[in-house]
Formats: sequence, structure tokens, C-alpha cells
Amino acid sequence: MIRGIDRVGIGVRDLDSAIEIYTKRLGFKVDKIYENEVEKVRTAVIFSDGCILELIQPLSDDSPVAKFLAKRGEGVNYISLKVEDLDRAINEFKARGLRVLREIPTTIEGRKYTFLHPKDTTGVLFEITGP
Amino acid sequence: MIRGIDRVGIGVRDLDSAIEIYTKRLGFKVDKIYENEVEKVRTAVIFSDGCILELIQPLSDDSPVAKFLAKRGEGVNYISLKVEDLDRAINEFKARGLRVLREIPTTIEGRKYTFLHPKDTTGVLFEITGP
Repeated sequence: MIRGIDRVGIGVRDLDSAIEIYTKRLGFKVDKIYENEVEKVRTAVIFSDGCILELIQPLSDDSPVAKFLAKRGEGVNYISLKVEDLDRAINEFKARGLRVLREIPTTIEGRKYTFLHPKDTTGVLFEITGP
Repeated sequence: MIRGIDRVGIGVRDLDSAIEIYTKRLGFKVDKIYENEVEKVRTAVIFSDGCILELIQPLSDDSPVAKFLAKRGEGVNYISLKVEDLDRAINEFKARGLRVLREIPTTIEGRKYTFLHPKDTTGVLFEITGP
């Protein structure tokens, strides 16, 4: 069902200085920067060949990413897994005993996604994305 | 220089129960299970299409993964990035001001890798791997 790693999301305190590090030192390029009002974050999508990362800075103390930073500090916030059919994947994961955080996926900037409960998957927040 | 995400390493407390979750619930298949004496861990390499994860259980309290689990709990331990030429990449990353944790890469099970210092890359432990 899982077709690959779509991207990795990284929680950061300061998006502009993170972009500096990832572009000048690691050699990534910026695809786009946008605000996600559902997650209350400002996000930079960066890439290098087939590898996509999202750098995510919270815009509000009640953003899930603000809570992540307060608890764990900067670092990997989520791993996004691609599936062929998101609605079918949600049903299958539920049937296998995994909790889905939003049964109605969120669509932002043309991407449709939801999350699995990290307590069901060894502490990893998996985003599930697909058409 | 970076050619894609090679794999994601996930620190777990109990490898066997983690394998259960990732195979029965998430649908991954086990490629192999081996012990890495350098990192003092037992590792399961699992895959689904192009997506590779490593589940990593420490075998000793002085394993870097034991320290990771004690500090942060289960979750994403590292992101592995593929490069074309590992020795050249090490020199280039150093020239750009990133600290390389082992200048002589480790080779285990045919994979050659080193790490960048997570304090230089927004708290993310990046493994760099390549021929």
C-alpha cells in the first residue's frame, strides 16, 4: 500500500535561518514558501534531486508544531508516506488497528494528507498522502 | 550533491514488537535483520516499494541509540541522504562549515556511511551514505 517516502517534515524555530542552513550548507533548493492555516505554520518546501523536505515554523503557540518544539526541540516532525489511494488507505489502516488523526484528510496547496497516531507507530508521526 | 532519501532510521525499545507493527499494520516487508557492532544495535531493514526504513534497537546502554531513547523516547533517529561520492561529500560539507561526526566512514553490511552533527542541521541527525 505504501509507495515510498513523499517527504520529511522538520520542525524549526526560525524558518529563515533554517533555509540558510539547508540551501547554503546542504545544497537544497527552495521550491516554495507558504502558510498553512490548518497547522498554523509557515513552511518552506526544499528539494535536491528526488529528495523533498519541508521546514516548518509555527506561527502560533497552539500550532501542533509549537507543541512539538516545546516538547522535543528542533528535529524531524513527521515522515510522509505516499499511498495510491488515500481514502482506501485510511480505511485499511483503521481496519488494522491504527488510529487515523483526521478521517477527513486536509488539502493544502494541492496536497491531500492525514496522519496516523504516533502512539500506534513507535513514536513516529506518519503523514499519509496521496490522491 | 544530495541524490535522495536513502532510508529513515527509527529508534525502538523492542525490535520484535516494532516489526509486528510495521509489517502487520503498516504493510512493510522485512528485508533483513542484523547486528551492527559499531553502533551496538540490532536492526531490521524493512521496505515497501521504494521506501526503506530501519528499525533500531540498542543492545547496550552505551549505544548511541540507547542515549537517544533515554533522551527523546522512541521515534525518528536519523534521515539517511544518498550522495554520489561519499568522500567528496564529506570534504564539501566540511568546507561549508558542517561538522562530520566520523571523517572515516563506517562500512557495515556493504553500506558506507557517516553522520553530520545534528547541532549544525536544526537538530536532525543526517546520515550521509554513498559509494
